[in-house]
Parts: sequence; structure tokens; C-alpha cells
Amino acid sequence: MTVIALFPGSFDPFTKGHEYIVDSALEMFDRVVIAVGSNISKNGLLSVENRIRLIEEIYKTNSRVKVASYSTLTGEFAINCEASVIVRGLRNEADYTFEHNIEAVNRILFPSIKTIFLSTPPELVHISSSVIKELHSFGHDVSEFLPNGIDINKYLL
Amino acid sequence: MTVIALFPGSFDPFTKGHEYIVDSALEMFDRVVIAVGSNISKNGLLSVENRIRLIEEIYKTNSRVKVASYSTLTGEFAINCEASVIVRGLRNEADYTFEHNIEAVNRILFPSIKTIFLSTPPELVHISSSVIKELHSFGHDVSEFLPNGIDINKYLL
Amino acid sequence: MTVIALFPGSFDPFTKGHEYIVDSALEMFDRVVIAVGSNISKNGLLSVENRIRLIEEIYKTNSRVKVASYSTLTGEFAINCEASVIVRGLRNEADYTFEHNIEAVNRILFPSIKTIFLSTPPELVHISSSVIKELHSFGHDVSEFLPNGIDINKYLL
Amino acid sequence: MTVIALFPGSFDPFTKGHEYIVDSALEMFDRVVIAVGSNISKNGLLSVENRIRLIEEIYKTNSRVKVASYSTLTGEFAINCEASVIVRGLRNEADYTFEHNIEAVNRILFPSIKTIFLSTPPELVHISSSVIKELHSFGHDVSEFLPNGIDINKYLL
Amino acid sequence: MTVIALFPGSFDPFTKGHEYIVDSALEMFDRVVIAVGSNISKNGLLSVENRIRLIEEIYKTNSRVKVASYSTLTGEFAINCEASVIVRGLRNEADYTFEHNIEAVNRILFPSIKTIFLSTPPELVHISSSVIKELHSFGHDVSEFLPNGIDINKYLL
Amino acid sequence: MTVIALFPGSFDPFTKGHEYIVDSALEMFDRVVIAVGSNISKNGLLSVENRIRLIEEIYKTNSRVKVASYSTLTGEFAINCEASVIVRGLRNEADYTFEHNIEAVNRILFPSIKTIFLSTPPELVHISSSVIKELHSFGHDVSEFLPNGIDINKYLL
Repeated sequence: MTVIALFPGSFDPFTKGHEYIVDSALEMFDRVVIAVGSNISKNGLLSVENRIRLIEEIYKTNSRVKVASYSTLTGEFAINCEASVIVRGLRNEADYTFEHNIEAVNRILFPSIKTIFLSTPPELVHISSSVIKELHSFGHDVSEFLPNGIDINKYLL
Repeated sequence: MTVIALFPGSFDPFTKGHEYIVDSALEMFDRVVIAVGSNISKNGLLSVENRIRLIEEIYKTNSRVKVASYSTLTGEFAINCEASVIVRGLRNEADYTFEHNIEAVNRILFPSIKTIFLSTPPELVHISSSVIKELHSFGHDVSEFLPNGIDINKYLL
Repeated sequence: MTVIALFPGSFDPFTKGHEYIVDSALEMFDRVVIAVGSNISKNGLLSVENRIRLIEEIYKTNSRVKVASYSTLTGEFAINCEASVIVRGLRNEADYTFEHNIEAVNRILFPSIKTIFLSTPPELVHISSSVIKELHSFGHDVSEFLPNGIDINKYLL
Repeated sequence: MTVIALFPGSFDPFTKGHEYIVDSALEMFDRVVIAVGSNISKNGLLSVENRIRLIEEIYKTNSRVKVASYSTLTGEFAINCEASVIVRGLRNEADYTFEHNIEAVNRILFPSIKTIFLSTPPELVHISSSVIKELHSFGHDVSEFLPNGIDINKYLL
Repeated sequence: MTVIALFPGSFDPFTKGHEYIVDSALEMFDRVVIAVGSNISKNGLLSVENRIRLIEEIYKTNSRVKVASYSTLTGEFAINCEASVIVRGLRNEADYTFEHNIEAVNRILFPSIKTIFLSTPPELVHISSSVIKELHSFGHDVSEFLPNGIDINKYLL
Repeated sequence: MTVIALFPGSFDPFTKGHEYIVDSALEMFDRVVIAVGSNISKNGLLSVENRIRLIEEIYKTNSRVKVASYSTLTGEFAINCEASVIVRGLRNEADYTFEHNIEAVNRILFPSIKTIFLSTPPELVHISSSVIKELHSFGHDVSEFLPNGIDINKYLL
């Protein structure tokens, strides 16, 4: 049984929290496709190309991870990737409500795709792309929120 | 990559909602162990033995499903089963909050085990074991809430 | 168009918050049946008979209100009363979640009955039967939480 | 007793979920006014005029429904319409929190108007105007989310 | 033991709800600094200068209150003010979730600063700066939502 | 300005999470009274006397902490202690809802007492007395959930 999981997001930028979700998915599924939604780009910190470069840098030695961009509905892209599972991370109840609504639509439009939720561990729950963007706009160093070894300055617009 | 998922619960009785979670898990994981917690038996409708018999009836032709009882911590039983994933269903935000707290403890005690959450689809969200127990206590037929073909009367205490 | 609304509860005791819901329902519907669930009586402060007496005292001059007890499923009692609407009060999100689950079951079992929710106004939101019971157990005067003119001591077990 | 209910919203577009709320209100109240807020028009899919045309098409044979636009506070419009009840639909807890805050203000400004909440049934809970707008922007057919027989293309800007 | 509390916000405008939080903080802490975030100014009703003038008018006779603006991270400003406590008001669960996320970041970046939460009392829970802005845009008098004696017209842009 | 804070609870047993709340309160307030509610003792692990002994062991060198039991309403005990602040910890939204309801009653009965909420930090959020009781009932070592140096076996019933 070979299962491909899709992890979609805007990843602007990819955080330690995202990394946890991918690493967990790799313990359960054969392959993980990290998919950068290319039309969700308001107030972007990184270009879609650089978001992909950043993520590829993290997983460059892991042949089970693939990084891609997409501009269709997420469910359509899952089918194109032969993914049968969409993976989403939850940090709190508000995330759950938001994701639950998206899943309810996907369930109707793409009944063959299942969504699973993974909780962010407590020590990472404060990390989000938007927090990183805000701290960065105040000139604050954000490297502790990024996967180890990632320098955001190499990917800035 | 072979992954075993554990689906723990009291299953008093196993419902159409539980069936959905197991069927979904079977699309993602190689094997699913349905584990009946034998010490969660206050106000029971079915004995642990009959809960197991009922579930075994549903999956009797599916060699990828195993049914068992346990009386240890859930994480300990997962390790005994060689399960690396615990699967839990969510019907609403209150379920999420409840499960999230349990996961937080398991994360500390059993770091090798990941918990994933699957949402119950809207058409099953009203179904729970406790609703079935209450309707049954009023003499109401509950077969529409049970997996197809299950007659609760064959398993009653 | 004549509409009868059912307001079910344990009403142990009926509070100023309950009174607000009934008074609001009377502005919308032709008749309101206040229905005391007679099997929800664990840790009761008042007997079912006295709960009814207390409520009847409040509405004794209002011919559009009827008070009754019931021991069936709430939806069955609504049908018996020719009520087409069940009215429930909400004090907070937790109430909503709880009521929403009950409604989901009623929707399946009694599709002809609609449930509506009314919010308790902020100045009454702290009032609940269980708070009254707890304060009373500490010997605290609870008359400010009861409809005007009601003396709980006249109805005690 | 004649009761007029106001169902206010942006209705861009009116969905199957909105239709459920109106149909339920028609079982309880003598008349329903569907009121399109004309100043909530950022990122509109349909013009206010066409939102009204679409809704009128659905209820053209029902003399108990009236469709109107308004640009005042909702409570002021309710009073103008002689509506004593505002009806709002709830899909989840987040909706409840949002609506509850609006009601709290209306309670102060327009004490004669009551707000009631109706829950969207599970099979419609994934439907919202914003989901329809997003799916439409991806070129996806949205007719299954609209009341039967409605073709969105006849009302587009 | 001398404790300085920081109450940060956009205060556009400062409301009766904000006043309650400050008055409560003054019962617990020696000094309260009300800090107007000067970079949170989208869709502003009042200029930062006038927000400060309005707040200073309220507390002009209280030497334990200081009003200031800031354009750094809130935690940095707390340290500059020698405040060891950040005070935030909660009106509902959604506020809690929002504030909890901000606190989680501050906890990492500024471990010496504690955040405390105070609940708005029920009779003020409907009041928010955004409600005031909306009512004002409809030409509605908003003085009942402002601290006694404040005339918003003296501070408008 | 001398402020006494009351931290009420059942503390069966006092956890690392409770210790965090007390330590935080000590940074803000002159004295902290830890009050063990002696009538909340269903399914107790420790006797009230031993709960107090355990807490006194932790703070034996801190003259600003006092430990007591009480059997009145919490607000009455606060007044007896000359405490003007009640401190409560929040681990999640469900805690907030629960505490918010209690505060709403206290606000009416004891208007001179303010309640403040402190969030448990993420690394302690999984810890609760009930989790400790459950793990202990399975024979699991619980010392990592207790303040450093506390051996639960010295306090057992």
C-alpha cells in the first residue's frame, strides 16, 4: 500500500511548525508533496519561487518529499499528484474551525480525498508565518522560528 | 512502509460514525487495530466482550482489521500493537478540545506515537454512543445509527 | 398562522434567564408550552411537581402559557403538544455546542420540528439553575436569580 | 398575532443555506423580509440589484416573502419593515460568536427587536457565499450550492 | 513591591470597556501605562495624537496613569516602560484565542513580561472600537459607548 | 499599595501548572493565599490536609505565600483573607468558558473582588490534577508533573 500525502499551504515562509507536520507525515505516508498555493500571495514576504527554494533546501536529501506550486483548487491538485490524503496542521480551536469548513467543501467536490489533521506540539504553537512576517517587519531576528539552518535573508523578495 | 493505526475508544456501542473513521483509516494505513478500553465501563450498554463481538461482525471479512480490548494506558497498548499512529474522530470543536488535551499527555509519555484526527462527515455528526444509549433507554429503534446489518439486541447485556 | 413553541428543560429551579426566554417566545409565538423533563432529576433541588407549581405561579395570569411535565423524548412531546418549534436559550458558546448536538439528533428523528435559539441577555448570563443550587447549598439567598416575587423556600423538597 | 421576520445579509449570492433559513422562518412567522445590505459590497460577485433579482426569482410565487435592499443599520430597517424578529443562520461556533456580538449591540440600540438563531443542517453546512465566490473564481460550477433552478450566470456583474 | 502594568491597544477610540480594564488594573497595580500602538492605523477614526488626547482627558487627575504611543513590538515597549505585566481585556472566547496566540509569542521573545487577562463585564461586552466606528459611520450617536463626558467630535480626524 | 491575591482550587494534587500560576502571581502581588476548597472532594487522591501539607512543602521558605482550606463560597473566603484579586489559570478555551461563568457569578455577589486569568505556558498545558490522578491509577510515575522534589507517595490517602 503506497500512500501519497499532500501538504498544501502558502508557506510564506515555511516554519518550524510546518516542518513538524511534514516530518510527522513522513512517519505515516510513503511520500509527501508540499504544495505552495501560488494565488494566495497578498502581502507576500517571499515570492512563490523562493518559498519553494527554501523548502527544497530543507528536504534536499529526502527523496520522499517533493515541493511544487499550484494555482488550481487544492483537491484538483491532490488528484493530479495522485495524493489520497490532504494533511493540515492545527494550532488551536480557531484553526480547527477554519480547516473544518474547508474540508467540508472538499468532501463534496473531491470525495476520494481524505483530510487528516495533526496538532502542532505546544512548544511550536506560537509559530506562524504571519507572526514571522510581523516580527520581520519590526526588524526582529526570526531564525528561531524557521527550520534549523534557514536564513530568511537568502529568500527575500 | 507498513503502518499500523490504533483506533481506541469505549465503543459502547460502535456506531456508523466509528465505522467511517475505520474505513477512512483503512484507505491510509496498512492495518487498523480497534481497541476497546475495558476500564471505561460506567453505565455500559454492552459488555466489553459484546462490544468486541459486534465490531468483529462488521469487519469479519477484512483481514486488515483487528479488534482487541485493553486495560492499560492507550499509548502503552499502541506500542504493544506496534501501532505508530493513534486515530481519533472529531465531530465538533468540543471534541477537538477534549482530544487535544489527551494528545498533549500522550505526546509527553509516548513520543514515538503520533495522533491524527479525522472529521466525521456532516451526515453522521449527530451520531454518538451516548445518543444511542439515550434513545435506546427511551425504547427508540437505533439501527439507523449503527453500521448496516447490526442488530443491537443481539449484543445487549 | 398559529404557532405553538415548546420550551423544554429541567427547570430546577426556573430562573430569571428562563423567564426571559419565555417572555421573548411570547412575543413571537401564539402559545408557549413550558415542559419539565421528569426523568432528569439527579441531585434535584425541587420535585417535578414543585417545579411546575413554581412556573405556574409566574404565568398564572397568562393564558398563552401552559406548563407540563414529560418523560418521553422531547421531540415526541413536541408533537403531542402540536408544537412546531422548540425554543432553547444560549448563554455562551459551550451552550451552543451542547444544544447544537441535541438539535442534530432531533432533526433526524423529528424532521417536522424546528429548533430556534435565543441568547440570554448579558445581565442574566451568569444565572443558571446549577449556580442557584450551589449558592443555595451554601445558605446564600438566591431570590435575585429567580423571577420577581418567587420564594424558593415555598417549593423546596 | 402577526409576526414579521427580517432576514438580513449580503447574499452575494443567496445560497441553499440561506434558502433553508427562509423556508424555516416561513414555518414560524407570517411574513419574511429578505434584506440585502447594500453597503456591504466589497469584492462583490453580484450587484445588489442582481442579488435581489436572484432572490425574487426563488420566491416569486410566495406572497409571504418580500425582498428589499437597505443601507441603514439593520435594526433601523427592521423597525421600518415592522419586523419584530431578526433571523440569523448559524453554521458553527465561529458564526455564533460573530452573531452574538452583533446581537449584543442591537439589543442596546433596538430593544424591541429580538434576534433568533437557526442552525444550518449538516448537509448544507459547507455552503457559504464566500465558498461559492472562490469556487466560481476557479471556474468551478457552483449550481449545486444555489437554490434549485438558479443559474448564477444570469446575475453576474 | 511596585508593579507597573502596560495596557496596549489601538484605542480608536478608547471605550467604556477599555476604561473598565484600566480601572481594574489600577486596583491591582501601582501604575498603568496605556500605550497606543501607532502603526495599527488602517481605517482609523482618530489620529494617534487625538487618541492620546482623549485618553489623557479621562485620566487627567490620576497621576498613576500615563498615556503614550509606541511603534515597536509591544514587549519591547513594556521593557522600556519598566512594566512587568501586560494587561489585556477579554470579551469572549474569540478574544481569548486571539490574545492567547499573541501571548505565546511574547512569552518566547520577552520571558520577563507576564500577560494577565481581565474579562469585560457583561454589561459592557457589546462595546468595541470597531462597533463604535461602524455606528459612527451610520451617523449614530456613540457617546453611550465612550467613557462618561467624552465627546468623540472633539477628537475626529 | 499592598495587594493580596487568592488562588483557589481543589489542588488534588497541586501540579507544576499550579506552581507556575503561583510563581507568576508572586511577581505581581505582595502576597498569595493558596486556598484548598475542602468541599470539592469527590474521588479524591489526597485528603485536604495532605494537599495543604504538599503545597506548604513547596513554599516553606516563602513568607509571602500562605496555604489554607475553606468551605465557604470562594468570594467570601477572599474577603476573609483581605484578598482583592482572585487568580485563575487557563490551559485552553474550555477552561476560559468554565472560569468565565464562575467569574460572572462572583462579579454579582462579590463586586469588590476582581478575577484575573493567567495562561499556562505551552510546555505545561498537558498537566492537570485529573491527568495525574488517571496516570497514577494506572501505576504510572507522575513525578514529572509535580513541582520538583515532590513525592506524591508521601501524601497519599
